[in-house]
Amino acid sequence: MAPKVLLSEIKWAHEEAKELFDGVADVLTIDKNMDRSSFIKELSPGGKYSEIVAIFRSYKAPFGPYDKELIDHFPPSLKWIASNGAGYDMVDVEALKAKGIHLSNTPSEVDDATATTALYLIIASMRQFSCAERSLRNMKWKPAGISAVSHDLTGKTLAILGLGGIGLRIAEFVHAFPMRVIYHNRQKAVGAPEYCEYFEDVEEMLKQADILSISVPLNTRTTGLVGEKWIRTMKRGSIIVNTARGKVLDEDALIRALEDGHLASVGLDVLPNEPHVNPRLLEFPNITLLPHMGTETRDTQQKMEARALTNIRDYLVLGMGKDVVPEMRM
Amino acid sequence: MAPKVLLSEIKWAHEEAKELFDGVADVLTIDKNMDRSSFIKELSPGGKYSEIVAIFRSYKAPFGPYDKELIDHFPPSLKWIASNGAGYDMVDVEALKAKGIHLSNTPSEVDDATATTALYLIIASMRQFSCAERSLRNMKWKPAGISAVSHDLTGKTLAILGLGGIGLRIAEFVHAFPMRVIYHNRQKAVGAPEYCEYFEDVEEMLKQADILSISVPLNTRTTGLVGEKWIRTMKRGSIIVNTARGKVLDEDALIRALEDGHLASVGLDVLPNEPHVNPRLLEFPNITLLPHMGTETRDTQQKMEARALTNIRDYLVLGMGKDVVPEMRM
Repeated sequence: MAPKVLLSEIKWAHEEAKELFDGVADVLTIDKNMDRSSFIKELSPGGKYSEIVAIFRSYKAPFGPYDKELIDHFPPSLKWIASNGAGYDMVDVEALKAKGIHLSNTPSEVDDATATTALYLIIASMRQFSCAERSLRNMKWKPAGISAVSHDLTGKTLAILGLGGIGLRIAEFVHAFPMRVIYHNRQKAVGAPEYCEYFEDVEEMLKQADILSISVPLNTRTTGLVGEKWIRTMKRGSIIVNTARGKVLDEDALIRALEDGHLASVGLDVLPNEPHVNPRLLEFPNITLLPHMGTETRDTQQKMEARALTNIRDYLVLGMGKDVVPEMRM
Repeated sequence: MAPKVLLSEIKWAHEEAKELFDGVADVLTIDKNMDRSSFIKELSPGGKYSEIVAIFRSYKAPFGPYDKELIDHFPPSLKWIASNGAGYDMVDVEALKAKGIHLSNTPSEVDDATATTALYLIIASMRQFSCAERSLRNMKWKPAGISAVSHDLTGKTLAILGLGGIGLRIAEFVHAFPMRVIYHNRQKAVGAPEYCEYFEDVEEMLKQADILSISVPLNTRTTGLVGEKWIRTMKRGSIIVNTARGKVLDEDALIRALEDGHLASVGLDVLPNEPHVNPRLLEFPNITLLPHMGTETRDTQQKMEARALTNIRDYLVLGMGKDVVPEMRM
């Protein structure tokens, strides 16, 4: 009997799924409208998912996070969760580890599209284009005095918090201007281009930045990482861009800094309680807000889905997928 | 007696103006609220501008275009118009030539800021970010089905119509992804990077493009240049970005192509009758509209003003400024 794999909704990689699993696995699909309790029931002995070996998990699973409660109901046959996306903050890695279940993500497929989003937010914030478009659409043409608060990117300093795949791609994009690129990681990034200057001391980096781009994953260590102290360490008139996760940035501290003008602008693709938008953010004309568009392209989503599915197939055929998350490799 | 120079409103380069003209010229300034007939009166014999040698002309001269009527009233002492900006479509070059008056522009200072605007519009149009932000600000989070009409830039083909200073800078920016860069000029651009592929045949170029960026100056040859035929030569689902002048692009043909979906999106920084906005454009949710923000940064505007003023000083001190417009160099 072929092993059973359970797939969340696939948007684009239907052909790839067929090619990868034909003759390799029996494919079950999760009913889009299934709620959490029904899902748990089907995972339990006698349920239709009780013998699955792997799950393809989409970012917006309809039955909430993969927390300990859910994981405790996973059948003993389940050995692989292929999470679609780079971030897996909605998955309890320790609980999976305890049950001997592997977790993979799609670490590099998201880099290009997410970094492009960051570049857009950097330009929008520095140039005040979002504000300018709203002015035009209100039939007011150019906002008065807009050039006084608009800045060229070229020659300015971009600080990247977290020079991983996405951060490196951002660095490549802004190097074309060039902007000066400085960064902080816990350790110096191996193989980063020479033009990326490492700062072991994050506050020293922040002092020199005109703009900060956040590219760290969300976990217990990074929740609220960019808060009052770090924001106030930046120069008055600085800008922050976030394409990582909303909870990495302390929203109250951010709003205070916008209110008193310490921050000249922000560009946010992610918010702490998506899809909820804090209405106070909408009061600032000088900021740019996107509804988590980082990887929202057909091209990238198809690549991500194909990669996540390939991790499952590699596990089934080769005994191991490529993209096991770092916490499980240690 | 020191020669008299007449300056339109200077926004940022006050210090530079002082340094350039102290001991070199007497500086008169144009009253911001002066109308066209008063201006003509002051240029005429006995008027306070009747002995000026040079004018610093800002983009938004309060008394309209430098057309033949106005130029015919210029005093015989006037030898130099230093126009602030790259484009000088509001100046009648032939009428100036006939009177032996030089015209200079600021050809390279605008490149970086304008190309950044084009890059923003390319990202906005390909990724549908402007539409996404409006959806969020209407408390609707992500527009339904947005990823199906969003595309990565990387690997796509950008056609640049007019590979001059601005076009080259755009090429540098998108090469970082990389996009494939193809271009059309009347002649192959000398010294362009190898990755820019020249097309003598503009229609052949348009057939291969995913996105077209317009970077040609407005003149009699380019008015309406991108019209029905060229737009329909592009593939269905293509995108057009314009940071040059609104009248280079046939607005009616553009609107038809948006209506029937031939164009997937457009990004416009310039419109045919600025600051008037054709209300039909506002009906398309999938396009990005900026109120001529190309050089709207303090950094760039200060550089432009300083360069335009330097042309006047060079004329006064050395007998010739650097940036005489091409039509006068032939």
